[in-house]
Amino acid sequence: MTFMRFRAEQLADYLRESIQRGELRDPLPATRGWSKELGVGRTTLDEALSNLRREGLVTIVPGRGVRLNPAARAVARRSAGHPRLIRMLYSAHDYPYTLSHLNWVAMLEERLYLHGAHVKLERYSDARWPAILRRSGPGEELFVLCSLSPKRQRLFERSRKPCLIVGQPAPEVSLPFVRCDHEGMMRHATHRLLRRGFARVSFVAARCAAPAIPFMTDVFRSACAEWPRQPVDAQVVLMPLELSAMATAARHFAASITGRHGILVMAPIPVGMIQTAITRYASGAAGQVEFIGLLTTEPDIGVCPLPAHYPAPIERIAGIVANAAIRYFDTGALPTLRKIVGLKLIPESCPD
Amino acid sequence: MTFMRFRAEQLADYLRESIQRGELRDPLPATRGWSKELGVGRTTLDEALSNLRREGLVTIVPGRGVRLNPAARAVARRSAGHPRLIRMLYSAHDYPYTLSHLNWVAMLEERLYLHGAHVKLERYSDARWPAILRRSGPGEELFVLCSLSPKRQRLFERSRKPCLIVGQPAPEVSLPFVRCDHEGMMRHATHRLLRRGFARVSFVAARCAAPAIPFMTDVFRSACAEWPRQPVDAQVVLMPLELSAMATAARHFAASITGRHGILVMAPIPVGMIQTAITRYASGAAGQVEFIGLLTTEPDIGVCPLPAHYPAPIERIAGIVANAAIRYFDTGALPTLRKIVGLKLIPESCPD
Repeated sequence: MTFMRFRAEQLADYLRESIQRGELRDPLPATRGWSKELGVGRTTLDEALSNLRREGLVTIVPGRGVRLNPAARAVARRSAGHPRLIRMLYSAHDYPYTLSHLNWVAMLEERLYLHGAHVKLERYSDARWPAILRRSGPGEELFVLCSLSPKRQRLFERSRKPCLIVGQPAPEVSLPFVRCDHEGMMRHATHRLLRRGFARVSFVAARCAAPAIPFMTDVFRSACAEWPRQPVDAQVVLMPLELSAMATAARHFAASITGRHGILVMAPIPVGMIQTAITRYASGAAGQVEFIGLLTTEPDIGVCPLPAHYPAPIERIAGIVANAAIRYFDTGALPTLRKIVGLKLIPESCPD
Repeated sequence: MTFMRFRAEQLADYLRESIQRGELRDPLPATRGWSKELGVGRTTLDEALSNLRREGLVTIVPGRGVRLNPAARAVARRSAGHPRLIRMLYSAHDYPYTLSHLNWVAMLEERLYLHGAHVKLERYSDARWPAILRRSGPGEELFVLCSLSPKRQRLFERSRKPCLIVGQPAPEVSLPFVRCDHEGMMRHATHRLLRRGFARVSFVAARCAAPAIPFMTDVFRSACAEWPRQPVDAQVVLMPLELSAMATAARHFAASITGRHGILVMAPIPVGMIQTAITRYASGAAGQVEFIGLLTTEPDIGVCPLPAHYPAPIERIAGIVANAAIRYFDTGALPTLRKIVGLKLIPESCPD
């Protein structure tokens, strides 16, 4: 490469950067005055503008001058080679050790690689939330809000930063989202236990601020209340995620179990934690308990034989987020995403 | 910014890139001939060189011309604003669902943010390995090899790409590394079980190609062989990581247990998987078995009460990798890292 590039090409670079920074807007100046202002000849300016036209940044209307195209700013950012970043935000308080699993980040990276985008995983403690929005890089950024609290979701909605929610959106929030079919899964799982004759059922989940928890709790309670054979004793048990506090909560829950009991365990609470606590602290009841794992990833199960469970559809969600991100980076506009991913039950299996 | 200043800045960009690629070296040409060669006016060249001086790339000695500063190449890389990328590679075969945990990636991101570096998680299947080295970006890249097989480690050593190993390096590989004190942990854990009178002990780990597994197996066997009170029945059980195959292996292992038995379970095999299999398939022996978790992250435990375990020192390893990466990006040289991180036993705890 030499520095002897055409002056027109350098001017095109300059104009592209001005568009990208939003300094150059419609209506663009008339070329005669404009070339003087830039200190270049009219031919050079015309040639630079033809380059920008070929890139899809401007339209040249004979006799009426030059106009910026609607997506010009996004296209300019792209041709300027600025980094594209997907910032995945999760809460250090709600997820002290795991979000769901590493492969979902790797899958997202893989799909975005050819589009020049990277995924950045950001774990925020309460004190550090205000810094998120200030910390913006030079390139394009898309925020992915992973199971954030309603308060944080509203904060992002007000900020007008481009973002999408992975998980349940808070009721009053209208950001684009992709989530699992929590309602269908909860109803299906609860009815499965009730059909098998369990009149005492529990829903065990993490005590965290994600809106999915109260939503699933409501579905669970109403599925129990609607059941034709009453009474159904429906219990909701929220547990801390810190390991020793979780073990203490598991022991207390186990001690309350006295007979036939159906238990739905929502990831990231491991099924094994509840099952072993019952074996130890409610040993008489151990054989009379049945488990269903909800939105499990492999390590959350950790019991043998494997219980019936609904695996988290990591791969599908990664695909949907990747497509939305690519569309955003290419057009500058976020699709109005409202995806609900269905879930499949893997039945209990007893290995040979 | 005007177009004329933009032109000088572009020249500075061009010169910076030439320095970075090592094309521009001392002695630099005299500015008169140089500006002609570049096809720019002397004012533009002078302005570009002032920019480089301010960045610490060159020194301008009045009457004696311009000289490159010693660290110019590294500084140029940095100011060129190219992305700095830490590519964390792991094997899709050895780690079908989890590497260790998401927080370690987030911790690394957090520490590298201010240094303009990002972490990219790459999961490779066998067929895709050859593509890794071809797929290089425009910026600086540092590879972090996460528990890769000896074959892959050698591939990287031959490639001379900048990389460091997280985990056990293969015996003949001399790349920089940071690993846990596998030897100390295995000896300590094995002796703990033997001191408690278990004459039958097992080491349960994942069947994967990471060199840590044969290394730990050797330490385990020799710790058993050296024990003063013989015979010691030492068994090594390698299990697949795919969930249902793991459950089958856990059942087979459980069925072989007949009495007092001490079991070391290495993450990512969950302690719960083995414990529940024993409760179910070796119920007579269940009360006579004791577990120790090795290099556990929270989800790998998943049992209540919590067994004695050595937590994976995620935070320390993230710190060491981050510091090595920052030093590499700033100076262009990788430190000769040979770190062995000590591990602490958290004793068994019975929650109230």
